[in-house]
Amino acid sequence: MKIIVVGATGTIGRAIVEELSPRHELVKVGNQKGDVKVDITSTESITQMYKTVGTFDALVSATGKGYFGDFTKLTEQEMAIGIQSKLMGQINLVLIGRNYIGDRGSFTLTSGILSQDPVPGGAALSMINAGIDGFVIGAAIEMPRGIRLNAVSPGVVLESMDVYGPYFRGHEPVPANRVALAFSKSVEGLLNGQIFRVY
Amino acid sequence: MKIIVVGATGTIGRAIVEELSPRHELVKVGNQKGDVKVDITSTESITQMYKTVGTFDALVSATGKGYFGDFTKLTEQEMAIGIQSKLMGQINLVLIGRNYIGDRGSFTLTSGILSQDPVPGGAALSMINAGIDGFVIGAAIEMPRGIRLNAVSPGVVLESMDVYGPYFRGHEPVPANRVALAFSKSVEGLLNGQIFRVY
Repeated sequence: MKIIVVGATGTIGRAIVEELSPRHELVKVGNQKGDVKVDITSTESITQMYKTVGTFDALVSATGKGYFGDFTKLTEQEMAIGIQSKLMGQINLVLIGRNYIGDRGSFTLTSGILSQDPVPGGAALSMINAGIDGFVIGAAIEMPRGIRLNAVSPGVVLESMDVYGPYFRGHEPVPANRVALAFSKSVEGLLNGQIFRVY
Repeated sequence: MKIIVVGATGTIGRAIVEELSPRHELVKVGNQKGDVKVDITSTESITQMYKTVGTFDALVSATGKGYFGDFTKLTEQEMAIGIQSKLMGQINLVLIGRNYIGDRGSFTLTSGILSQDPVPGGAALSMINAGIDGFVIGAAIEMPRGIRLNAVSPGVVLESMDVYGPYFRGHEPVPANRVALAFSKSVEGLLNGQIFRVY
């Protein structure tokens, strides 16, 4: 398969590349570097990415920012960061990409554990991650031409514990290669409208 | 208690007023009519509402729009309707209102069944409703001064079946007065960070 990996140079993205590259042709996409560059907060940039890549069989997304920090300082502006990036950025990858993907292709987005298991500082990402899961459930049933749509919802990633450990006390970290397996299951299997929880 | 009811003239809002008015002082708020008017898509309007109302003990929200319709026409613009209104409108009621509400007060928002049980045409609202639930779970644990935050997630409302029936085939409609009970439980009980599912 020809698979677009958005966020290919991130912690999870690199593990996805390692998991999928032995069996598939990957198009590695990043914000700053990669075979193709994309700014997922821009629908024009997303459209340009699809035009550059041409026909493809699957897109996996392991990218997107959101506000994580002091709840007392959380306002509409901080919420907007994640809405534009991790939430609508990934949703727009699907809404635009459905016009470019091949029959029976698949989209796999990344949400995260905070939708169900919140931590201090994580209210914005609890909303964002839950919203991604909700979109996947709602949109999957309407995708045309046998196209599938799933999300992978990882726990805190082991390789990021030096940064996130203090904010995820008591959480059991998940190695990135375990998260990558869920992307393989989504792309190489036949399930649709699923949230693959890896935690 | 002094309770602000946003969306007091809607189908669910009227049932909430009927349920709570015998025991509490209600401030009925609407977009077009009410004791006080508010446009929840405007943070200025929300702030003005709180300044007008003064100290209060609870806010319940049964309001907010979102795109419902043809999935093939769903783009960033249609997603934005619900993000600005039902999702961020209600979230801003909390983020701004936490500075005005009394100690041990409560906020209760409205999400809906589509977060878990999607229907054709409902992808945008599946995202919106799930996002509300995620925010409630994430933000409830950080509310100061004993303030609580919950959501009521109703099924399709019986009194709206003439409009929504064709889109919710096989769904068991819920009378608005059953939905109103969940608001009573949230306001008059002590639970926090809960999604009260009424379906």
